[in-house]
Amino acid sequence: MVKKPAPDASRRSERSRRAIYAAALALVVEVGYPKTTVEAIAARAGVGKQTIYRWWPAKADVLLEAFLDLAEQAARELGQEPYAIPDTGDLAADLRAVLRATVDELLDPRFEAPSRALAAEGVVNEQLGREFVAKLLEPQLQLYVDRLRSAQDAGHVRADVDPRIALELFVSPLAQRWLQHTGPISHAYTDTLVDYALNGLAPR
Amino acid sequence: MVKKPAPDASRRSERSRRAIYAAALALVVEVGYPKTTVEAIAARAGVGKQTIYRWWPAKADVLLEAFLDLAEQAARELGQEPYAIPDTGDLAADLRAVLRATVDELLDPRFEAPSRALAAEGVVNEQLGREFVAKLLEPQLQLYVDRLRSAQDAGHVRADVDPRIALELFVSPLAQRWLQHTGPISHAYTDTLVDYALNGLAPR
Repeated sequence: MVKKPAPDASRRSERSRRAIYAAALALVVEVGYPKTTVEAIAARAGVGKQTIYRWWPAKADVLLEAFLDLAEQAARELGQEPYAIPDTGDLAADLRAVLRATVDELLDPRFEAPSRALAAEGVVNEQLGREFVAKLLEPQLQLYVDRLRSAQDAGHVRADVDPRIALELFVSPLAQRWLQHTGPISHAYTDTLVDYALNGLAPR
Repeated sequence: MVKKPAPDASRRSERSRRAIYAAALALVVEVGYPKTTVEAIAARAGVGKQTIYRWWPAKADVLLEAFLDLAEQAARELGQEPYAIPDTGDLAADLRAVLRATVDELLDPRFEAPSRALAAEGVVNEQLGREFVAKLLEPQLQLYVDRLRSAQDAGHVRADVDPRIALELFVSPLAQRWLQHTGPISHAYTDTLVDYALNGLAPR
């Protein structure tokens, strides 16, 4: 059985953990993923290499946790519950709200630079890309799946629609504009995406 | 006035140009954009550095042309006219056809590796990203704008829809799945996107 750490040790650990997250995120921005080593993270965080290896098997795992932590912080600051999309019964309003919050997060400089560095590496490094999609992106997309399923139950979304594909009609345009600089992002833009996706491009 | 080159010189130039395109595309895959220098392209293509500088101001311009050439070749091999989306009067059928051809192109190994290398660089190098979007991606997206405008004239697309945003409902999901490995791509998938985008997720 593992002994519960004394309060002092626990505070020290928490401080080290935060320093390691910050160091990993800063390095991936400054030197890119390939050159972000466990050694460099340890040196910058002011901890021993063994401290990192005690908690994480490899640098990808450190970065993954640093990102999860960053995303949760951002969601809390925006007053959002990080693990669910609200269901007020008005699907359009709920989607507009969560996408507006996502726009704010994507435009937050703390979030933007490390996300770009990691996304760029994921484009060319298929293994890392798939791991980060599975652990970071897909769980967020599943929140849309849940919300669209409950809308299907309420008769607000066609019964024959696959929610995992449907969510891409508003999530992917925002992702591509942000990632590839193909256009500006704003609340008005994501509101428009929700309108087009729910109501369709063809006249009703 | 510039003298028309003798046929021999012209053939030689064309051969050099092709060798330079091939070298540039191979290098960007093997060593990445930052390490793809004009010197390395020249050495691999078996031409002098000055030959490259005579035709292009910088490596970004060489790569841009190499890509345009590759995309035109791919379109021709697929039996497509590279500069227009057909207008048969059936918008859904026309979009399904062009998106199916795009899926085939994205899955073509000749196209895939250099596109990924360049897309990854564009994510972190905003200037290059914007240049390639403006010169490579945006002209292709404008073909969708043209097709959607003609559909609006025919009453097949809502008059209040902005075609430049509307096209993202089917183009961006495909781009994100391919670029970020967020899901498989296939003809069935893009057919589904066209259905959802035109008819909407809400019941009619």
